[in-house]
Amino acid sequence: MKTSIALILAAVATAFALPASAQFAKPEDAVKYRKASLTVIGAHFSRVGAMANGRVPFDAKVAAENADLVAVMAKWPWTAFPEGTDKGDTRAKPEIWKDAAKFKEDADKFQAETVKLQAAAKTGNLDAIKTAFGAVGASCKACHDAFRKD
Amino acid sequence: MKTSIALILAAVATAFALPASAQFAKPEDAVKYRKASLTVIGAHFSRVGAMANGRVPFDAKVAAENADLVAVMAKWPWTAFPEGTDKGDTRAKPEIWKDAAKFKEDADKFQAETVKLQAAAKTGNLDAIKTAFGAVGASCKACHDAFRKD
Repeated sequence: MKTSIALILAAVATAFALPASAQFAKPEDAVKYRKASLTVIGAHFSRVGAMANGRVPFDAKVAAENADLVAVMAKWPWTAFPEGTDKGDTRAKPEIWKDAAKFKEDADKFQAETVKLQAAAKTGNLDAIKTAFGAVGASCKACHDAFRKD
Repeated sequence: MKTSIALILAAVATAFALPASAQFAKPEDAVKYRKASLTVIGAHFSRVGAMANGRVPFDAKVAAENADLVAVMAKWPWTAFPEGTDKGDTRAKPEIWKDAAKFKEDADKFQAETVKLQAAAKTGNLDAIKTAFGAVGASCKACHDAFRKD
């Protein structure tokens, strides 16, 4: 009897060991989360950009802090695109699920570029930051062009 | 001549050294950012909570990763409550600006509790996580009760 209860509990535990994409109770929760995480990324990335583009004076500490946050957040939005979340208040194109390998490749590229930006910001070298900022921006644009509705 | 140009440039630089709250071009940008950052915090905090409350099996690595993100994000929402952002699509109560000292105190308390949760999660001790999770949750609630409309 004890064994069968243990087996049932183990089965229940396995059922609850959901993949990241299943961590949202409702499709709209996933949509809300991914939009929120991308808003946060965009806000902090644009603060690095303001310095890279000379719109605000360069402050190495501020650049590093914002680049850090972008790199920390960069892996998360992509965990919130489960199947069936192409509806509602979203600009996600069906290509995200039709060409999931390309979407993943773009997301991986973005993450890799944010790590480079983080490293560049840590050096405090503005020219290195400008280069890395441009590469991150290009990866944002490539993914938006392919996978986000206008 | 060179000196006066340097002085002008220094004055311009100072003018651009904006506080965090002035980093939003429009009031609605601040509202959007603070809601997004709180949505991200809430999503990751609730993943720690699912383990603290036994709704999903405890996974020390997942708990630590989510607690880390909460702690990293915890300082940011409060940078997005500049004066004049009590309008529009927000549940912010006027008390945020009327009693700014109390609002800051609550925000500081929240940040301190998230650092404790991060430390607890790092130990991998579920009981310590439960205790720290409860304290963070209480600080969320205290601030929501005082400063957020129903």
